[in-house]
Amino acid sequence: MQKHKPRVVIVGAGFAGVFAARELAGAEAEVLLIDRNNAHTFFPLLYQVATAAVESEHIAAPVRGIIRDMGKRAANLDFCLAEVRGVDFEKRLVLAQGQEGESLALPYDYLLLAPGSVTNTFGVNGADEHAFSLKSLEEAVRLRNHILRSFEFAAWAVDAGKRQHRLCFVVVGGGPTGVELAGAMAELMAGALKRDFPRLVLASPCVTLLEAGDGLLPGFPDALRAYARQKLEALGVDVRLLAQVERVSPAGAFLKDGSEFLAATVVWTAGVKGEPVAGRLGLALAPNGQVLARPTLQAEAHPEVFLAGDICRTEHAGRPLPMFAPPAIQEGRHAAQGILRLLRGQEPLVFRYVDKGMMATIGKKAAVVRLGRFSFQGLPAWLLWLAVHLAYLIGFRNRLFVLANWAADYFLSERCVRLISRRNPLE
Amino acid sequence: MQKHKPRVVIVGAGFAGVFAARELAGAEAEVLLIDRNNAHTFFPLLYQVATAAVESEHIAAPVRGIIRDMGKRAANLDFCLAEVRGVDFEKRLVLAQGQEGESLALPYDYLLLAPGSVTNTFGVNGADEHAFSLKSLEEAVRLRNHILRSFEFAAWAVDAGKRQHRLCFVVVGGGPTGVELAGAMAELMAGALKRDFPRLVLASPCVTLLEAGDGLLPGFPDALRAYARQKLEALGVDVRLLAQVERVSPAGAFLKDGSEFLAATVVWTAGVKGEPVAGRLGLALAPNGQVLARPTLQAEAHPEVFLAGDICRTEHAGRPLPMFAPPAIQEGRHAAQGILRLLRGQEPLVFRYVDKGMMATIGKKAAVVRLGRFSFQGLPAWLLWLAVHLAYLIGFRNRLFVLANWAADYFLSERCVRLISRRNPLE
Repeated sequence: MQKHKPRVVIVGAGFAGVFAARELAGAEAEVLLIDRNNAHTFFPLLYQVATAAVESEHIAAPVRGIIRDMGKRAANLDFCLAEVRGVDFEKRLVLAQGQEGESLALPYDYLLLAPGSVTNTFGVNGADEHAFSLKSLEEAVRLRNHILRSFEFAAWAVDAGKRQHRLCFVVVGGGPTGVELAGAMAELMAGALKRDFPRLVLASPCVTLLEAGDGLLPGFPDALRAYARQKLEALGVDVRLLAQVERVSPAGAFLKDGSEFLAATVVWTAGVKGEPVAGRLGLALAPNGQVLARPTLQAEAHPEVFLAGDICRTEHAGRPLPMFAPPAIQEGRHAAQGILRLLRGQEPLVFRYVDKGMMATIGKKAAVVRLGRFSFQGLPAWLLWLAVHLAYLIGFRNRLFVLANWAADYFLSERCVRLISRRNPLE
Repeated sequence: MQKHKPRVVIVGAGFAGVFAARELAGAEAEVLLIDRNNAHTFFPLLYQVATAAVESEHIAAPVRGIIRDMGKRAANLDFCLAEVRGVDFEKRLVLAQGQEGESLALPYDYLLLAPGSVTNTFGVNGADEHAFSLKSLEEAVRLRNHILRSFEFAAWAVDAGKRQHRLCFVVVGGGPTGVELAGAMAELMAGALKRDFPRLVLASPCVTLLEAGDGLLPGFPDALRAYARQKLEALGVDVRLLAQVERVSPAGAFLKDGSEFLAATVVWTAGVKGEPVAGRLGLALAPNGQVLARPTLQAEAHPEVFLAGDICRTEHAGRPLPMFAPPAIQEGRHAAQGILRLLRGQEPLVFRYVDKGMMATIGKKAAVVRLGRFSFQGLPAWLLWLAVHLAYLIGFRNRLFVLANWAADYFLSERCVRLISRRNPLE
């Protein structure tokens, strides 16, 4: 009887999980990807789903399709649609729940934990219940439906106060997600929705961006941060700095300094924390729910377990890496290489983040990019942003369709996916 | 003070409502379209959404976008997102419920009722509860999710009986919808899903089509009906004629003759009936819930009220017209012209259906077409089917994207939208 090949289980098919799987295609190991969704979601474009610019299907790539696209060498990869509930580190089993509630115990020899992150509202009163979030395809579609419904409601509302309330939108958080969402919302409302609702008089400004710090885009060079603010304001966004939200209610967002922003829609983009499953594993956590990793990305006390992506606390130049896609991709690849080294009897290497830079888009022809030591903005930054996002979007067809949507947006200021999905299609 | 322009209200933005609105663009009347969805759905391609061939967004066109695309002459058209609950014929008010539950009373001088149809299970035991239906975007997405989930479940199911049960699919009804769905399901499973699940051994046949009559596609010429059956069987579909379903349960479909078709998925396409709202209006109904219309498409006793589409019972050559798109389009146009005649003080004309023919597709390069007196099948019929469906699909962008999806399907046997949507994104 043949001894079984070593088994590698990857929890999570986000950036870290998918790039790790690619690294492990063709290896002398059976590799199993587990995710609660059957598709990899391209998170950086969720805000475009929420603002009716691209179809939700076009920023999602079915995991089995990603595996197929790797060709014959990926014959050692498989996928399981299930929700991970815990890990038995002693017996080396991933404990998961299948879609019909059945319990699955999936054995591993090497484990890569990359379950990602969830929204962090830092205990702000009412934020979990009343604020929209933007951490999954479903949440993005829910926000899109809500924005479009607000306009449909306002078009026929008799009560002027209610109408005004539904046409005010607050975004909490001045990081890349908040900046990109606020800019895209302002453009949606000044473009496609203005043409859809010619009889509706909009409040000005109707989008407010609240940031607790003293500037937008923390971590970006100062010149870019100032540019981002100026561009957002030019789009009609009311940017408020040093605005610390104390409470969110159906009436709006309320600040610690007593000021009120009345709005029927509050979107919370002000923080992320490690996926709660990490808390059930008995591993040492950072205060934000990330798992503390060794410099090799191995878990403390479990050398056969690796961490990558948003769940993984690792440092660069003495500071924790931001929970963005580039660190996740590099960590996923490095963790997979660590597993390959263990398979060959070598020790895993220390992870070193290669900081290629960071970018965010604000609106049409307006973006900010730091590339190594160089900073630039405006049209060249925007074109680079487009190219990089298309390149990392998985699937030729998705790229084609997203590009077509962007062209419609660019040339016609059109947002084509103005569709309110109705009942629960999901059972 | 100026007397207000005559007000026309159109209930329903399906084929009848949208084509009526186009006819009324630029008329000396204020025209209001009401629908519970903010988009017109292209029903003939719902089966392709259910089989992961096209995105749900691509067969839906936002009503406000349709109005905008008519240009400046459509300045007299408006839209209201609401669910119609009844009509006060005396006060000439359409009574509707807005999205927040608010009551709306929308005044009209002329009314066009085109609310469409719903699935008719004819009281078959368990069919309403346990069978899938295909009468809305949401139902199509729900069926797609279910088919894909069945395969994901089967891939990891330990119990061989359960696995087999999840991989058996029954379609009830041998009309165009049933034939097109069964063919598309068989192709999906033999193509994209076979490649997605290389380790899964499928039952053969895994798709069964049950038709109560003695042949598929009632109403089509006999040669085409025989061809459709032969082609479906070549695709691996188990076609059963004279199969009268007595009961549907989670276990499968059970026939009057005692035979059983065990399957976790039963799709009911065997009948439609008028939208239930018609029953609350106090108008004379046909047994299938359609409203009996005068030959001019006016409602009996209410000359200012017109009927069009699936809700309208009208005859052609002594038989009721089928509840398909072509009669709906012609009726919608005719009813709008009737309203225009009344506006000019003329009497509405009698509606005469121009029977251009009928068509259905079975699979790649296989369709049946009756064009006037001519019948043909195979590749030419399939190409004509593609051209006609693209032409009637609303929106240049939708046409482009659907064509791209069809090309992927044709050249690569690929079904690109293999996405399981997860939680309720709809509130």
